Amino acid sequence: MKKGIANYQIGDTFDYFLFIKTSSKGVASNGKAFLSLLLKDTTGEIDSKLWEATKEDEELFQQGELVKVQGEVGQFRNRPQLKIQSIRPVQPTDGVQISDFIEKAPVEKEDLMERITEAIFEMKNPNIQRITRHLVKKYQEELLIYPAAVRNHHEYVSGLAHHIVSMLNIAQQLKKLYPEINQDLLYAGVILHDLGKLKELSNAASPAYTLEGKLIGHITIMVEEVQAAAQELQIEGEEVTILQHMVLSHHGKAEWGSPKPPLIREAELLHHIDMIDAQMNMLNRSLSKVAPGEFTDRIYALDQRSFYKPTFEN
Amino acid sequence: MKKGIANYQIGDTFDYFLFIKTSSKGVASNGKAFLSLLLKDTTGEIDSKLWEATKEDEELFQQGELVKVQGEVGQFRNRPQLKIQSIRPVQPTDGVQISDFIEKAPVEKEDLMERITEAIFEMKNPNIQRITRHLVKKYQEELLIYPAAVRNHHEYVSGLAHHIVSMLNIAQQLKKLYPEINQDLLYAGVILHDLGKLKELSNAASPAYTLEGKLIGHITIMVEEVQAAAQELQIEGEEVTILQHMVLSHHGKAEWGSPKPPLIREAELLHHIDMIDAQMNMLNRSLSKVAPGEFTDRIYALDQRSFYKPTFEN
Amino acid sequence: MKKGIANYQIGDTFDYFLFIKTSSKGVASNGKAFLSLLLKDTTGEIDSKLWEATKEDEELFQQGELVKVQGEVGQFRNRPQLKIQSIRPVQPTDGVQISDFIEKAPVEKEDLMERITEAIFEMKNPNIQRITRHLVKKYQEELLIYPAAVRNHHEYVSGLAHHIVSMLNIAQQLKKLYPEINQDLLYAGVILHDLGKLKELSNAASPAYTLEGKLIGHITIMVEEVQAAAQELQIEGEEVTILQHMVLSHHGKAEWGSPKPPLIREAELLHHIDMIDAQMNMLNRSLSKVAPGEFTDRIYALDQRSFYKPTFEN
Amino acid sequence: MKKGIANYQIGDTFDYFLFIKTSSKGVASNGKAFLSLLLKDTTGEIDSKLWEATKEDEELFQQGELVKVQGEVGQFRNRPQLKIQSIRPVQPTDGVQISDFIEKAPVEKEDLMERITEAIFEMKNPNIQRITRHLVKKYQEELLIYPAAVRNHHEYVSGLAHHIVSMLNIAQQLKKLYPEINQDLLYAGVILHDLGKLKELSNAASPAYTLEGKLIGHITIMVEEVQAAAQELQIEGEEVTILQHMVLSHHGKAEWGSPKPPLIREAELLHHIDMIDAQMNMLNRSLSKVAPGEFTDRIYALDQRSFYKPTFEN
Amino acid sequence: MKKGIANYQIGDTFDYFLFIKTSSKGVASNGKAFLSLLLKDTTGEIDSKLWEATKEDEELFQQGELVKVQGEVGQFRNRPQLKIQSIRPVQPTDGVQISDFIEKAPVEKEDLMERITEAIFEMKNPNIQRITRHLVKKYQEELLIYPAAVRNHHEYVSGLAHHIVSMLNIAQQLKKLYPEINQDLLYAGVILHDLGKLKELSNAASPAYTLEGKLIGHITIMVEEVQAAAQELQIEGEEVTILQHMVLSHHGKAEWGSPKPPLIREAELLHHIDMIDAQMNMLNRSLSKVAPGEFTDRIYALDQRSFYKPTFEN
Amino acid sequence: MKKGIANYQIGDTFDYFLFIKTSSKGVASNGKAFLSLLLKDTTGEIDSKLWEATKEDEELFQQGELVKVQGEVGQFRNRPQLKIQSIRPVQPTDGVQISDFIEKAPVEKEDLMERITEAIFEMKNPNIQRITRHLVKKYQEELLIYPAAVRNHHEYVSGLAHHIVSMLNIAQQLKKLYPEINQDLLYAGVILHDLGKLKELSNAASPAYTLEGKLIGHITIMVEEVQAAAQELQIEGEEVTILQHMVLSHHGKAEWGSPKPPLIREAELLHHIDMIDAQMNMLNRSLSKVAPGEFTDRIYALDQRSFYKPTFEN
Repeated sequence: MKKGIANYQIGDTFDYFLFIKTSSKGVASNGKAFLSLLLKDTTGEIDSKLWEATKEDEELFQQGELVKVQGEVGQFRNRPQLKIQSIRPVQPTDGVQISDFIEKAPVEKEDLMERITEAIFEMKNPNIQRITRHLVKKYQEELLIYPAAVRNHHEYVSGLAHHIVSMLNIAQQLKKLYPEINQDLLYAGVILHDLGKLKELSNAASPAYTLEGKLIGHITIMVEEVQAAAQELQIEGEEVTILQHMVLSHHGKAEWGSPKPPLIREAELLHHIDMIDAQMNMLNRSLSKVAPGEFTDRIYALDQRSFYKPTFEN
Repeated sequence: MKKGIANYQIGDTFDYFLFIKTSSKGVASNGKAFLSLLLKDTTGEIDSKLWEATKEDEELFQQGELVKVQGEVGQFRNRPQLKIQSIRPVQPTDGVQISDFIEKAPVEKEDLMERITEAIFEMKNPNIQRITRHLVKKYQEELLIYPAAVRNHHEYVSGLAHHIVSMLNIAQQLKKLYPEINQDLLYAGVILHDLGKLKELSNAASPAYTLEGKLIGHITIMVEEVQAAAQELQIEGEEVTILQHMVLSHHGKAEWGSPKPPLIREAELLHHIDMIDAQMNMLNRSLSKVAPGEFTDRIYALDQRSFYKPTFEN
Repeated sequence: MKKGIANYQIGDTFDYFLFIKTSSKGVASNGKAFLSLLLKDTTGEIDSKLWEATKEDEELFQQGELVKVQGEVGQFRNRPQLKIQSIRPVQPTDGVQISDFIEKAPVEKEDLMERITEAIFEMKNPNIQRITRHLVKKYQEELLIYPAAVRNHHEYVSGLAHHIVSMLNIAQQLKKLYPEINQDLLYAGVILHDLGKLKELSNAASPAYTLEGKLIGHITIMVEEVQAAAQELQIEGEEVTILQHMVLSHHGKAEWGSPKPPLIREAELLHHIDMIDAQMNMLNRSLSKVAPGEFTDRIYALDQRSFYKPTFEN
Repeated sequence: MKKGIANYQIGDTFDYFLFIKTSSKGVASNGKAFLSLLLKDTTGEIDSKLWEATKEDEELFQQGELVKVQGEVGQFRNRPQLKIQSIRPVQPTDGVQISDFIEKAPVEKEDLMERITEAIFEMKNPNIQRITRHLVKKYQEELLIYPAAVRNHHEYVSGLAHHIVSMLNIAQQLKKLYPEINQDLLYAGVILHDLGKLKELSNAASPAYTLEGKLIGHITIMVEEVQAAAQELQIEGEEVTILQHMVLSHHGKAEWGSPKPPLIREAELLHHIDMIDAQMNMLNRSLSKVAPGEFTDRIYALDQRSFYKPTFEN
Repeated sequence: MKKGIANYQIGDTFDYFLFIKTSSKGVASNGKAFLSLLLKDTTGEIDSKLWEATKEDEELFQQGELVKVQGEVGQFRNRPQLKIQSIRPVQPTDGVQISDFIEKAPVEKEDLMERITEAIFEMKNPNIQRITRHLVKKYQEELLIYPAAVRNHHEYVSGLAHHIVSMLNIAQQLKKLYPEINQDLLYAGVILHDLGKLKELSNAASPAYTLEGKLIGHITIMVEEVQAAAQELQIEGEEVTILQHMVLSHHGKAEWGSPKPPLIREAELLHHIDMIDAQMNMLNRSLSKVAPGEFTDRIYALDQRSFYKPTFEN
Repeated sequence: MKKGIANYQIGDTFDYFLFIKTSSKGVASNGKAFLSLLLKDTTGEIDSKLWEATKEDEELFQQGELVKVQGEVGQFRNRPQLKIQSIRPVQPTDGVQISDFIEKAPVEKEDLMERITEAIFEMKNPNIQRITRHLVKKYQEELLIYPAAVRNHHEYVSGLAHHIVSMLNIAQQLKKLYPEINQDLLYAGVILHDLGKLKELSNAASPAYTLEGKLIGHITIMVEEVQAAAQELQIEGEEVTILQHMVLSHHGKAEWGSPKPPLIREAELLHHIDMIDAQMNMLNRSLSKVAPGEFTDRIYALDQRSFYKPTFEN
């Protein structure tokens, strides 16, 4: 790929492929329609305008499409803006694909899957193991490409699997330090806790909330899924209730979306591991964008705090 | 039945049947075991002690049993206490049954069932109607005897069905006043919203929380039940999601146990109807115990408020 | 009336009467004064500019005036804007009046008054009846035209009377379902609870807060009015205190503006009836603007929630 | 007076006059009635029991009575208890009066009244002055004997007047330091802010909440009184609204009982002066009971804090 | 000085000295750099633009500099804006100095210092006196010029000393009214409580938060300073701990930044005195900008309230 | 040691050594003094009474003493109580020492110290290393014996060092998983964060809060100590400020006692590691006391939750 969109200066001409993250129609003061497109590649995003857009343009250039764009980089209200001179949908002969244009996890899908499979393999309790394996298989395809969230943390392709694997690694170390931990429960909780997002969100590349996501939410969706899996596998017993509880309580408090707080040791631990991995992901990415001696932008999901990077870091 | 336990005075001798609400074992200062029994009939409750209890006593006189008791009414720390002189389990020939000793709804079971059936019959949307009918049938037996809660409101036999029927009546009137209301949704929400209590609580007569009740809670239990019913009936479509949302959101706020607030008009209304009927049940019963010009005891579920009964009430 | 302002397209020429909802003066970059007018009829509102406004314009075109406007509908920052070419005050010969240009309740004033009178007539307690009748008579004129609020719910001409009548209807039905209710108290509470708004707000058509409204508030104003009415009618007794309490506590909690929470059964009920009617008014109007399958705009007074209109509604 | 009740030891015989602060009837384990009396003089309080109390005893020995008691000081649950051997109502010839047995302000009533009168005399705005003088005259008798509260601060005879005078002194000094202050408003606010307690509480010596106090509260009661005074004096104008606002807002926040927060400079200041004087009264009395180097008991109205008395105090 | 910047009208030409409060660089749509300068004198502030700014301009015209500016007063988005035609740094021969361009306390530095010295002189406890005197001497230079805060209250040159002296005056009066107060403690608390701001903020004229200010905060900084002073002076004893506590607790509550609430009488009082003086400073300045009968702008640090200025003020 | 106190039954005679955890004097109903002693060994605690205690008894049998006791185990209000028949202070010839009677960490002091020393040795930043080493040396003696808290978690001898070492182990593993972490900062934060407890608490065996602990608190105490260490070592630079910030912010929020929230990545992580280790310590100990299928007692520091031990644990 050529240099990314983030590296263009005002006045430069752009002529390459970009991914349409969002698309919306407006009417200009001359009464003619135009399209506002938010275009992106893995380096960043740029606002753009396609003036005097036709009905056909409107149908072609929708969210989730890949396009070839030619235009000039200008500026509007202190932010760069691409004024589109020509635009067309990507064709097979262009040899580019969506996955090249959106950020993804720093670990390969296959490696992530292997680590999850390994954790399931290590489980000793057959009920916990079978339910976990069943659900991972059922959702394997989406699991490997979905982000962990629409924004805030792990919001990239394979972000959910990446989050799970990082959490499994923390869990593995804590088990060594606190041998009382029931490893089966903790691993199963880590793997299952956010799978409901695969139904809460509409797709992996430019995810939006589904109706089920808005009205029911990923936590309750997943509690149901565990129940359905147990019924399908004809598993009865306390393990089912406790796995459901692990999922239900992992946000820690009613105000944060868990109608029951953790009442099992491993559920309490799951909540903390989830927070640590989500926060480290946010912090590392924010801090990587600033120099030593500077503060980051305010981080929304960390109570709007700006974090400081010490000058003695390098 | 003879005069109820609430009408005995200190010094009286009691010799009749009572229901064991709770039973616990203690050790006296002389090192011998005794049983503390909380005994009740429909008029009230009394603490009692069975001194020098044997192992056999302990097995016979457990929570939920009906017993014949003879003893004297004394006083301990300003509260009446029955000193048991003799006690035995009820025998078939005694001609008494548990239902005679515990409070129940002021409407007959059959009438409650008829009103619920009628509401289901009036539904026009077949998906909503079939799911509701399916779940009512599945749990009909428990539904007609369970209380609506362990304490606070409708905490008597058939209390849940009584609560549902009162709410149906409010819903029916509001539908007349606000014709925009989707009656099917509102009726289904009223009937289903608390059915999860049938699994949250252990039994109708002296209910305790089950493990599932403690770790999952009646709201999430019922959301799952709606899902399972839809699958069994092979119903798909938005009605399923929306019925689940009605159940999920009926406590109104995350802090009150609903991970999603009401996002459907009828869900918002369901929340208010539930509160009105629960509060009227509590208020009417508390106010019936005081004379005009007096304040009630503090009512726990109404923010510990004492309510005043005006002197011009009669 | 011709088609309403909401039905004009960009580029259309407008030439009819409109009501000035707000008016403010600005200075253009050329140093000349202009007027920003928010103009409305019953279908909607439009921003407009009167450039190079004279001192006389400023005096003529103030909030609350009716004007004849001719101009072109353009667009500014994605919103329609009327560029005024000519404007003049309405004259008697135009044959239009303010009431034709502002939204009003869907029920006639006379019918609203009749229903309120009927409720007063049904009261049996003479003290409650006389105080209520006295205050309704004293404020009858304003009561029949004021809105129930500046925004949020029933914010149209006769909105307050419409709100009272809807609440009376709910109260009537609840009395049938819960015969313990003191109907006199509940009806009086419904009729009186918001009458203080007649002094809290400056006028019916384009209401603003009065100094008394800002510094004292409608609840306390009305508690005083009940006291003054009782003195004038030489009524003493508990009814006076309890009617004052009904008004004082109807917001339900200190944080919501009631220094005492409801401590009377009917006061608690009044709070719920008020909330149900306000919410149904907001919800029905918001939902009427969206199609099945869509979410409404965020509703400020309902915790910023967007509500969903099911696809199976029609 | 002889040495006070607080100075008696276990085993001592008491034989003098005491005031009945509270009286309640109980039934002993032998089935006979007894009276529990809380008896006090200015030095402290003691629990006592009158065993085998007759109907006549019950009528004679009620809250608010002065009695001659003879009995022995014992101990019950680690607290002193007086076992009454004989008791009779006080007779005129005893030469004692209630005011000798209950705590009162450290300043004489006459001096308190003089200071309040002086402050009213200094007012320049005739409307503010006339309303204040009218209300002080109307309630002068009670004002000079009522406590400022049932408990917490200034809970003694003339406590309210004492609180007002202390606050006037602070107000006077602050006026010197901040000449922008409107002295008339601030003085009037200080004098009027708590006068509603004269109707909120039942009497000066052993005050309880009246029905009006419980259902309306002293703040709203006093706002009404200001309105009534203005009407009686035929005063109109902003002063009336602002005086009402001073009273209404003096608790500072809705959660603390003021439906409007202070929106006038002098209202904000009134809130702080009230808090300072109430807190100094509580703190000085609590600290006077402990030695240097000790912590006080937890003070309920100061967020349950215990305060420390430095060792270098003397 | 000529008439201040606040008195210029749109269209006027400005040609005098101003102080650069903030300076930031932008890029115009033609790709050229410009400087946005916020310029001020004691009468007010004005936005300005220096178009086509050179690298040298950027270095010369930074925050904290004094400049001679010539340009025309225009308008941008309804606010005045100065279009700079020429600008240069101030030269010694101009005979102006920064202190002439920034607001300062209405009392002279020398008088403020004298009052603080007098208060220290009055102290009787040698430990308290020596620590206080030591710290005042150590920071005397900054103390006399720093503001009390970046914004909100006393945000002008010598603002901190002005705040301290006003508080000392209140403390002196309260000591007269409540003789139990330990004057040494209260005076020391007043003088020391905010000295940590001298390290929390970067300088007096255009203060920003230092790293220590952001990561540690003025309260903890000052607690350390008291400790260090005691060590240097070889003072041991409870006075040190209690002075630290006075500083630590002066914000009143954990949520407001004090990890311990006041647990000493004088610490509680210090909190109230601080609030009164800060609020009077904010209120008097806000109210001085509006006419009788108007409301002030919303005051951020007073819970966003707008205050009313009565019409009977003059 | 013989079998512990926890293993005695009602009716048994006890005759061995115990440690006095608390001692208080009372007066019996016969007017004679007695001592209430809470006695303990490593297995548990028992209430006891020494009736008819002399002045000499009172001086001998104080908190923190080791005694030889002979008496009978009875019962009072459902709890075991030791009725002391004879008691004497321990003598050198008894061959017992306090450390045998109080609970201690499951790891030896020497091993704890070695692990801490190793972590300091691994540090690469000399400023961080020197400050940390200096403070560990300064407080080494107390550090190795103090508990981490008076109650809740690690409330046993060497509890603080045990808590530090467990946290170092978690920190070491997280560093491996997130290489961006600054290990020096995180290790130093772990070692220093709670050292202030050595001055907040009075001693290791039966700790109480010191005056400094109550008025200043361990967080602020330790921030000062870091400052003093840096001064003594003549270290300047950002490391000092950041180490202070790590200590200051480790409670995570103002409401929880940290006046600044974590603003450094490692400070955020320190907060989570602290919570995990404290919670695992509490949970493991509570869960070890119940059988599978049971709930623990409510755990105060975990929001009063009872945790469930699954039946499939063994």
